[in-house]
Amino acid sequence: IYNTIAHMRDAEYEYVGRGFGGDLSSRIDLFAEKIFIQNLSSYGEIFSEESGSIGEGKRKIIIDPIDGSDNLLSSFPYYGSSIALQENGKTLFSFIVNYANGDFFVKYNDIYKKGSLLHNELRDVKKNKFAKVGLFEKAYANPDIVAKLQEKKLKFRSPGAVALSLALARFVKFVLFIGTIRNFDVAAGLHQCEDLYLFKNQSVIIIAEDENIFRQLKTIVVKD
Amino acid sequence: IYNTIAHMRDAEYEYVGRGFGGDLSSRIDLFAEKIFIQNLSSYGEIFSEESGSIGEGKRKIIIDPIDGSDNLLSSFPYYGSSIALQENGKTLFSFIVNYANGDFFVKYNDIYKKGSLLHNELRDVKKNKFAKVGLFEKAYANPDIVAKLQEKKLKFRSPGAVALSLALARFVKFVLFIGTIRNFDVAAGLHQCEDLYLFKNQSVIIIAEDENIFRQLKTIVVKD
Repeated sequence: IYNTIAHMRDAEYEYVGRGFGGDLSSRIDLFAEKIFIQNLSSYGEIFSEESGSIGEGKRKIIIDPIDGSDNLLSSFPYYGSSIALQENGKTLFSFIVNYANGDFFVKYNDIYKKGSLLHNELRDVKKNKFAKVGLFEKAYANPDIVAKLQEKKLKFRSPGAVALSLALARFVKFVLFIGTIRNFDVAAGLHQCEDLYLFKNQSVIIIAEDENIFRQLKTIVVKD
Repeated sequence: IYNTIAHMRDAEYEYVGRGFGGDLSSRIDLFAEKIFIQNLSSYGEIFSEESGSIGEGKRKIIIDPIDGSDNLLSSFPYYGSSIALQENGKTLFSFIVNYANGDFFVKYNDIYKKGSLLHNELRDVKKNKFAKVGLFEKAYANPDIVAKLQEKKLKFRSPGAVALSLALARFVKFVLFIGTIRNFDVAAGLHQCEDLYLFKNQSVIIIAEDENIFRQLKTIVVKD
């Protein structure tokens, strides 16, 4: 998928010009889903945003074929895929990849590593004590929260791919998501944040490594 | 610089652990500036955010050694450098690079190209008719504008590196910047947007390829 998207990016304008229509997003979503199903269906029942449940098995594999489709279409370099392998409702393995730069994040058995498809490497993740900014997904839909974060001088970026932002949670100052939470979008990402301060209800996710920042965000976002 | 940052990213935590102190930002800023000065000073007088004016010459070279330092420190993959070559106040050449994924954008003599340090390529830029989102730099400091964009259903990302966002202006739906505008940050980026709808005053930049979106944004952001 990485190579296909890299190729697509090289030829993205010609690609559209060939008359495939406006829905390039669903084309690449479906293409990515097909690749995942081909390669993962022998390991369990697959749940995907595009097709729902596919196949059978004791284990469930929750995939988001393309996380950040709007970014991909807009040539904004922040989009990827996520995979979570679950058994009895518990996530055993998660994988999140950023196709825009080749970074990937993998966790299994409490081992958490960051890798790169480009540099062919996999390394341990250590604490980032120098993070300056948090990530606020769906800031554009929550101006009131933007105002409150500004009051508290909590600087953020708003990049638009939830699983990727969750994968970066331990590198940045915080991750905030306010909107409709779907299991497909967050299963892998939440697995990678299990050791951080984490609040989640039906429409809010707050994650931070620092307890003070976590409490500040909770006070701001969650009404008592 | 790209290779140094790639290496720094590989070893970013060890790097910090070695006791270089919290100011990794200025270390990499100064390192990048040094490389640019070494390589560019024979072409004219350099103006840099870090050191002001360096050297002499008929031509001026305006550099932002690291655009998006806070992102680099936060491991958020959106940071780069920009260079603008000016003569008699007019920009003749501009170069903007994203170190997080190797993309670069270059313009000279009305030739505008996008390249990749990774794939060793340089290609013509064509219109992106499928952009879904705009870029809003400093959204975190402008909650009132966030509210107005939400009303008009103008979806945005807020990534935190101005020159890079200006380089992406023709790919995305719009670029909006509201804050202190410094010449170092925008000289190269504005050069790459000369053929787009563009408004600029002391604290606002509005750019769009589509005239309607441009007018909408101007009505929202610029009072009367």
